[in-house]
Amino acid sequence: MSTLSVFALGGLDEIGKNMYVLEYGNDIVIIDCGSKFPNEQTLGVDLIIQDVAYLKENQEKIRGILVTHGHEDHIGGIPYFLQQMNVPVYATRLTLGLIQLKLKEHRLLRTTDLVLIHEDSHLSLGSIEVTFFKTNHSIPDCLGIVLHTKEGVVVHTGDFKFDFTPINEDYADIRKMAEIGSKGVLLLLSESTNAERPGFNPSERIIGEQIEEEFKKAKQKIFISTFASNVHRVQQVVNAAAKTNRKLVLLGRSMVNVVSVAAELGYLMIPEGMLIDKKELQHLEPAEVAVLCTGSQGEPMAALSRLATGNFRQAEILPNDTVLFASSPIPGNEKNVTEVIDNLLRLGANVVYGSGRDTGLHVSGHACQEELKLMLTLMKPKYLMPIHGEFRMLHKHRMLAEAVGVPFENVFIMKNGDVLEVADGEARQIKSIHSGHVFVDGLGIGDVGSIVLRDRKLLSEEGIVVIVVTINERNGALVSNPDIISRGFVYRRDAEALMNELQTLVIDKVTELQSPSRNQGRVIRQTLKKTTEQLLYLETKRRPMILPVVIEV
Amino acid sequence: MSTLSVFALGGLDEIGKNMYVLEYGNDIVIIDCGSKFPNEQTLGVDLIIQDVAYLKENQEKIRGILVTHGHEDHIGGIPYFLQQMNVPVYATRLTLGLIQLKLKEHRLLRTTDLVLIHEDSHLSLGSIEVTFFKTNHSIPDCLGIVLHTKEGVVVHTGDFKFDFTPINEDYADIRKMAEIGSKGVLLLLSESTNAERPGFNPSERIIGEQIEEEFKKAKQKIFISTFASNVHRVQQVVNAAAKTNRKLVLLGRSMVNVVSVAAELGYLMIPEGMLIDKKELQHLEPAEVAVLCTGSQGEPMAALSRLATGNFRQAEILPNDTVLFASSPIPGNEKNVTEVIDNLLRLGANVVYGSGRDTGLHVSGHACQEELKLMLTLMKPKYLMPIHGEFRMLHKHRMLAEAVGVPFENVFIMKNGDVLEVADGEARQIKSIHSGHVFVDGLGIGDVGSIVLRDRKLLSEEGIVVIVVTINERNGALVSNPDIISRGFVYRRDAEALMNELQTLVIDKVTELQSPSRNQGRVIRQTLKKTTEQLLYLETKRRPMILPVVIEV
Repeated sequence: MSTLSVFALGGLDEIGKNMYVLEYGNDIVIIDCGSKFPNEQTLGVDLIIQDVAYLKENQEKIRGILVTHGHEDHIGGIPYFLQQMNVPVYATRLTLGLIQLKLKEHRLLRTTDLVLIHEDSHLSLGSIEVTFFKTNHSIPDCLGIVLHTKEGVVVHTGDFKFDFTPINEDYADIRKMAEIGSKGVLLLLSESTNAERPGFNPSERIIGEQIEEEFKKAKQKIFISTFASNVHRVQQVVNAAAKTNRKLVLLGRSMVNVVSVAAELGYLMIPEGMLIDKKELQHLEPAEVAVLCTGSQGEPMAALSRLATGNFRQAEILPNDTVLFASSPIPGNEKNVTEVIDNLLRLGANVVYGSGRDTGLHVSGHACQEELKLMLTLMKPKYLMPIHGEFRMLHKHRMLAEAVGVPFENVFIMKNGDVLEVADGEARQIKSIHSGHVFVDGLGIGDVGSIVLRDRKLLSEEGIVVIVVTINERNGALVSNPDIISRGFVYRRDAEALMNELQTLVIDKVTELQSPSRNQGRVIRQTLKKTTEQLLYLETKRRPMILPVVIEV
Repeated sequence: MSTLSVFALGGLDEIGKNMYVLEYGNDIVIIDCGSKFPNEQTLGVDLIIQDVAYLKENQEKIRGILVTHGHEDHIGGIPYFLQQMNVPVYATRLTLGLIQLKLKEHRLLRTTDLVLIHEDSHLSLGSIEVTFFKTNHSIPDCLGIVLHTKEGVVVHTGDFKFDFTPINEDYADIRKMAEIGSKGVLLLLSESTNAERPGFNPSERIIGEQIEEEFKKAKQKIFISTFASNVHRVQQVVNAAAKTNRKLVLLGRSMVNVVSVAAELGYLMIPEGMLIDKKELQHLEPAEVAVLCTGSQGEPMAALSRLATGNFRQAEILPNDTVLFASSPIPGNEKNVTEVIDNLLRLGANVVYGSGRDTGLHVSGHACQEELKLMLTLMKPKYLMPIHGEFRMLHKHRMLAEAVGVPFENVFIMKNGDVLEVADGEARQIKSIHSGHVFVDGLGIGDVGSIVLRDRKLLSEEGIVVIVVTINERNGALVSNPDIISRGFVYRRDAEALMNELQTLVIDKVTELQSPSRNQGRVIRQTLKKTTEQLLYLETKRRPMILPVVIEV
């Protein structure tokens, strides 16, 4: 019998969230291929994807990428992956629609094998049989994945919650999950995002009721913002608009894109004639329109942020208009969101927003503690690998698992590249394989690395001072006055004295070092770097990057 | 009768938090002189203080700075202010102790008039009479300030909460406040930090009970982190250590400093022999010690963060040690705090922390909605200026005031420099005076401005490319190959082709422009900047800063 290996690849965090790999004998199956958004540490980077060197080396084993759902952190890396290896991609209809948008942008649509699957599909990928089960989440058409090998059954939940009264779709297939569990699950990979939150998520349906309530109260224009991909919530906005006889305007590129894909594929039912163009806004009474827009996370360039500062050409928020946040800030976005709220209040709008994670017009798409315990109880896995969360969430998930009967030592909290190997029914964590992240910056993929980021960080905090000296190549004498240019250090006009002092120092040092020797350039550069660093630190307590250039003529 | 003016100065935000000014006839009284910490927008800046140009122009009118309490955002700007103008500073004993620490560091102690006041002090500052009232907050010895002018009474609350069972001090003097209100308050300046939070803060005392509970449960070493200045909480940690027979070690510079000032001045009662040096840690059993440390906000260089990564020489966190966060993350610090928690869990520690604003071993020091309404009801002001908060908090405070009878139009939400003028008992907002912020970076005060920050931002996102060309001053011909140096843009070894292309372009352009004319340097610089920008954007979709340097020899 072959050995079964399961591991995560890539992502900036130490703990994988965006790609899982199962390897069994000669077959590799990949689950999800997401991207990560940059943070304060990845200055100027646009996107973070996986280093897939290991997969490239084992390319002939790869049977395909199985996609659990259509969120960016699960599909955003696909175009970059396909540029390196052409493998088939398996996904449900909406997920596939969103992947196609990406592939079109990257001109990969024609060369890629896209395979439509659904909850009852059955795939044979080499020696691995694959089945699926339906889950609920904050986007339609989500799947959990069941991988059947001779070594045992591995289940990957994807992102999930349980919603017994979902919008426009069936509830999570709890009976099928029970059946999978009854037949025996060797290893469960289950998401952990909300492992710190007690209880059970309320149904998405109650948000619809709250939205409708607000629509009924509003006397003027309504602006409402949510994630474009939360198609269920968009449907509830459509329903509220229909009930209150308002036309609907879509603002923001991703809102227009996703709504059109979802409506085309039948995931969104919009009454004929309800959607109008933003140009028509001026012809309608304020009480006749609602505007559904991007920007629920306070993204500076999104529609809502621009509306809040009066920088959106075709629409304007006036006093007593209503603005609804049908969303909750993702950790890290709080400051941007509150700034948008402040600006909206300054315009005199009636703003409905939450002040914490639990309030406002929002329910989470991720399982809370009781839901995680429900999943564990249904699946009754021998081993658990808590995935998709920060360390304290995985840790909490482990404690929840222990509470419902999974022994502590059967729970594996793994870092990227750590490999869980199962042989003869026994799992153990073995040495890790190569793993890492790749930065996408503009057109560059991987050309921004740790050295470039370290420089960007230094430049961002202290700026740069460029010192150009021209010397005679024969005797090392200064040919002209040194050029000293600073950017991001001090404003030169305010610091003339300091710059003069620096200039004097440079002249003195170069003169001191004057010599006909050949490698004088290097000596001068080193000396200038050291002495100017000392002077500037003494005078300013700052350490800008010093870039000495010596020209020999 | 003179006109009464009230306004805020400086701070980075549009809305003042750190300094208020009252001007009446020939007298100016300043309330607080705080500093603000930098954020993501103020790259590399250490501290933000007020632009006090207006006060400097009116220096002869200034009667002094009245300080409400000893937090950084109320005293941090004092040394910088005193460097510009020598005016007396009035504060209570603990506040004065903390100010003295700062003045000593800045060598201003000998030249400054420090005046000790208490809640029953009465000052005559020119034509302005000043009295005080005791408040509760998260640091001892806080005052509200009452300014009596012929135009009417102005009350500044400082930061406050109501705690009827405080630790080591009296409760807020609610009877005196009622008396002030009964005699008539023209204008109330009241803080708004928690105006969005319903209810009434629990007493600090319950935190003591929770800390004691955790101390009793712990079987090994205990590490506990809180703000050093929260002397009441430190007292409760001391009490818990005493009850459980643990010695106490202090880690972190501000913890050691503040505890020693507070103990010296009698605000903190520490049993003889309880405090031990960190060197003694190794000689004691784990169950015999507790460590009180800085770092509750996840500050990377603070004691707790270093302990969490095993980078603290004299102390070590072992599996099953207990770590208590007696604090709550300040908005913006969440990511740093959770990273420290993750690291502590990785060490196997039992970590007690809150997952939201309301949980964990913490109560806020700022009045919640019912407390704000209590203050308003006690003071019954004709006019309200909500202060110390972001716009939505001031907005909410206005709504609370309306609910308890202050007319909407009598509430003034003001930006920095906006002036509220009261004449003949009527207040109105008049044109603003000059206001602004000053950045402190290293030793530089004000030499980092918007141009430097703009450059730092650009450098941080895209890096810099320096192009040095040397030309013959007579005919403009290239003397040697151009030098091209990049930092924070691409890693040169990975981008050799691009750099070669750039070099060729530079040579071509300089050769094209070859001419004996005099101002050729400027023309070449402009052309190189434009054409290289185009090339790099085309090839990389990035726009690094381009710095062309032309040397004529």
